[in-house]
Amino acid sequence: MGKNLTKRSDDYSRWYNELVVRADLAENSAVRGCMVIKPYGFAIWEKMQAELDRMFKETGHENAYFPLFVPKSLFEAEEKNAEGFAKECAVVTHYRLKNDPDKEGKLMVDPEAKLEEELVVRPTSEAIIWNTYKNWIQSYRDLPIKINQWANVVRWEMRTRLFLRTAEFLWQEGHTAHATKEEAMQETELMNDIYAEFAETFMAIPVVKGSKTENERFAGALETYCIEALMQDGKALQAGTSHFLGQNFAKAFDVKFATKEGGLEHVWATSWGVSTRLMGALIMTHSDDNGLVLPPKLAPIQVVIVPIYKEEEQLAQISEVANKLVNDLRAVGISVKYDDRDTQKPGWKFAEYELKGVPVRLALGPKDLEKGTVELARRDTLTKEFVKREEVVGKVQGLMTEIQETLFNKAKSFRDEHITEVDSFDEFKKVLKEKGGFISAHWDGTPETENKIKELTKATIRCIPFNRKEEAGACVLTGEPSEGRVLFAKAY
Amino acid sequence: MGKNLTKRSDDYSRWYNELVVRADLAENSAVRGCMVIKPYGFAIWEKMQAELDRMFKETGHENAYFPLFVPKSLFEAEEKNAEGFAKECAVVTHYRLKNDPDKEGKLMVDPEAKLEEELVVRPTSEAIIWNTYKNWIQSYRDLPIKINQWANVVRWEMRTRLFLRTAEFLWQEGHTAHATKEEAMQETELMNDIYAEFAETFMAIPVVKGSKTENERFAGALETYCIEALMQDGKALQAGTSHFLGQNFAKAFDVKFATKEGGLEHVWATSWGVSTRLMGALIMTHSDDNGLVLPPKLAPIQVVIVPIYKEEEQLAQISEVANKLVNDLRAVGISVKYDDRDTQKPGWKFAEYELKGVPVRLALGPKDLEKGTVELARRDTLTKEFVKREEVVGKVQGLMTEIQETLFNKAKSFRDEHITEVDSFDEFKKVLKEKGGFISAHWDGTPETENKIKELTKATIRCIPFNRKEEAGACVLTGEPSEGRVLFAKAY
Repeated sequence: MGKNLTKRSDDYSRWYNELVVRADLAENSAVRGCMVIKPYGFAIWEKMQAELDRMFKETGHENAYFPLFVPKSLFEAEEKNAEGFAKECAVVTHYRLKNDPDKEGKLMVDPEAKLEEELVVRPTSEAIIWNTYKNWIQSYRDLPIKINQWANVVRWEMRTRLFLRTAEFLWQEGHTAHATKEEAMQETELMNDIYAEFAETFMAIPVVKGSKTENERFAGALETYCIEALMQDGKALQAGTSHFLGQNFAKAFDVKFATKEGGLEHVWATSWGVSTRLMGALIMTHSDDNGLVLPPKLAPIQVVIVPIYKEEEQLAQISEVANKLVNDLRAVGISVKYDDRDTQKPGWKFAEYELKGVPVRLALGPKDLEKGTVELARRDTLTKEFVKREEVVGKVQGLMTEIQETLFNKAKSFRDEHITEVDSFDEFKKVLKEKGGFISAHWDGTPETENKIKELTKATIRCIPFNRKEEAGACVLTGEPSEGRVLFAKAY
Repeated sequence: MGKNLTKRSDDYSRWYNELVVRADLAENSAVRGCMVIKPYGFAIWEKMQAELDRMFKETGHENAYFPLFVPKSLFEAEEKNAEGFAKECAVVTHYRLKNDPDKEGKLMVDPEAKLEEELVVRPTSEAIIWNTYKNWIQSYRDLPIKINQWANVVRWEMRTRLFLRTAEFLWQEGHTAHATKEEAMQETELMNDIYAEFAETFMAIPVVKGSKTENERFAGALETYCIEALMQDGKALQAGTSHFLGQNFAKAFDVKFATKEGGLEHVWATSWGVSTRLMGALIMTHSDDNGLVLPPKLAPIQVVIVPIYKEEEQLAQISEVANKLVNDLRAVGISVKYDDRDTQKPGWKFAEYELKGVPVRLALGPKDLEKGTVELARRDTLTKEFVKREEVVGKVQGLMTEIQETLFNKAKSFRDEHITEVDSFDEFKKVLKEKGGFISAHWDGTPETENKIKELTKATIRCIPFNRKEEAGACVLTGEPSEGRVLFAKAY
């Protein structure tokens, strides 16, 4: 399987597209720009959801569900937000189909069933949610509200790619309401930190935490924090964002609360989200020319056992040992699949699980039975070794941690090697062209310069890193004064 | 709180509507017919989802995700299905908004962004899924496919009620593909059995398993199995359906497979679903004039502890005992909330948790500290008793089982008392009017008679019970021969 995969060095983009389809993660559907997430891909997403959901709940958030549709008049209430999303809105205008009198067996939109007010399919839910919060918030006692929803959203994109940019995608969106600016700022930072912890601990993806420039901010936000990851082709990927919305939505929807001191003030807001785009980041960070490489913490199947045999009798003996291994591994919380299908040969299965990124493969043949050994192969390093049968469980347990760390460290080395400080625009262009990755450079702080650089190089400011050192310098393009370096990159 | 709730005997329908809102389960949104599911309501739904999801996976099903939109040409491919849903379809016709030149700050649908082909917001996903399965199925080796998806769907209903009938609702829909008719029939039955087991074991709702008449079948199905529950007002509620779709969708989408024997045949299909409607069934089956009553297995909070005190010092002492109880109860897997808010009085809290259906309430006052006791109140029976502190955990553990069983048995007694055999149409009308519930009567098997009875009484055939005895009789309306009794009722 993996053998026919396009090589990353030949065509990274094509490699990605092929891999997503051939590893059974997702595929394009009959609906322009919308994907089908296949069971194997969805199982990974479910694992991601479970961890994030736990982290949200542990920090005091609750789940709820708000409508898919936003009436146009609500959608346009917060002007900047509306303006930012207007160009990619799917709009419901009718509520009925009828038989087409001119075409036997065909349907048509019933012109008599036109909605009085059009409904926007949510591209994000601030509007519908703040219109609801209005009725929930009267006094400081009603605050904070800390709600998350897992939902589908639609943004009509012209150029789509599986997981990375699709017209419909799945995500979670948190929407919180607070009595003070400070509390809302803290929440914005907390959720960005949670995203970073999730990305690093579970996805094994190192991220840079920072804030977006005005150009790159969420429409309607006063501040957007983000986590930025680096893919193997040297392009950046925004993996999560957390927005401080100030009082913009409270003002647009007239949401005020009685303060402890007897005053009346507008409520402070945040919103934050990650989406199925993370699947793209996961795939692109770790995978290789043989296929997917999954970190053990998110692998639906952590260990696969493949029997190698010629006769039925051998299979029975192997299965006895294999089934015991399955039980022993499951007993310590490891997910195992024993693939004893007789419709495929071992070589085919090896390639298949390599393509699908299963972290550890165990193979058991007649010789292993004799010797009391098992052949163990690691997906990340592609190394093999023989392990004594009684040591398999301990070995595999250790590997779950080791592989997770190895993947993170490898991605982190790559990322760190691809943050290049430059001090001239020639160098900027040269590094961007020849090496890629993040370029750490001084910037004069104006949207105009950022736009100019984007125009000239296609690189944008990915973030102003939180951990940057304050350092006086000269803008890489204009030479104007700068207070510190920001990270530029071409991005997904 | 509960004190101001409309009584069931005064106006059952109003009681339900008030309860849903006041127990913080759901509310109407700004979008016609669409609801907001509030955190407390959503927490119950999440518990239901978790159990169902486990049951689906244990029987070999996998989750996946298919697009929200169905292109009109795919939607109309299976004619009966299309015909059944055409009248309630929300339709996306445009993909962009633009500034309204006539109204400053307002948006309008951009007439230049009209879709070439309209997109139906899925009312159900057979069409889009079978159009996908077409590419997944070539040979018998690709079968069976057993996939479920958790999703939102939209059916434009004119008269809506929270949870029971909403324009958008959440559900799961299973879609399976099989090589043989027998296997598909077995799957249809298995999933209906799983729904019944879930309803009875977790929701504590007794259900009748049976099949639908042709009139009541899912549009496009050859056979619809269902579970039917009875509400306290004597109306029936369809709680889940499982459809045998035959080869209808395989034919509409041209899905054939190479058989083991070298032939080429159309694939056999099933689909099955339950929705947030189950929330309505849960609420209506158990709740009383004081508010919600929840079975322990689905209660987000199983036990609440309320401190009763006058001085801060007392609270500190009570909290010490309460916190130990919280830990001890959590250690045995019981979810507990300790409500030590100083903004509300104990009486208010008692009413609040009664309204919200928390199965067990513990109260701790200064006297309890002296005596080493705790006051324990059961939500289902509204009884109170004092329990020795060291016996609380054991007592509560026992109550989790006991309350669950009590609720089921109570609902079952009510249901059983409300299945009335009648043998004349006068009796039919009298029982329907005066007693309500299921009416077990002979029917001649024709859609015409069923329609006539519906017209005359508003009662429909809820199901042909699987466990009915074969018994020759005369149709309650026409006197024509019948092979056995079916269950009629007015229904939600």
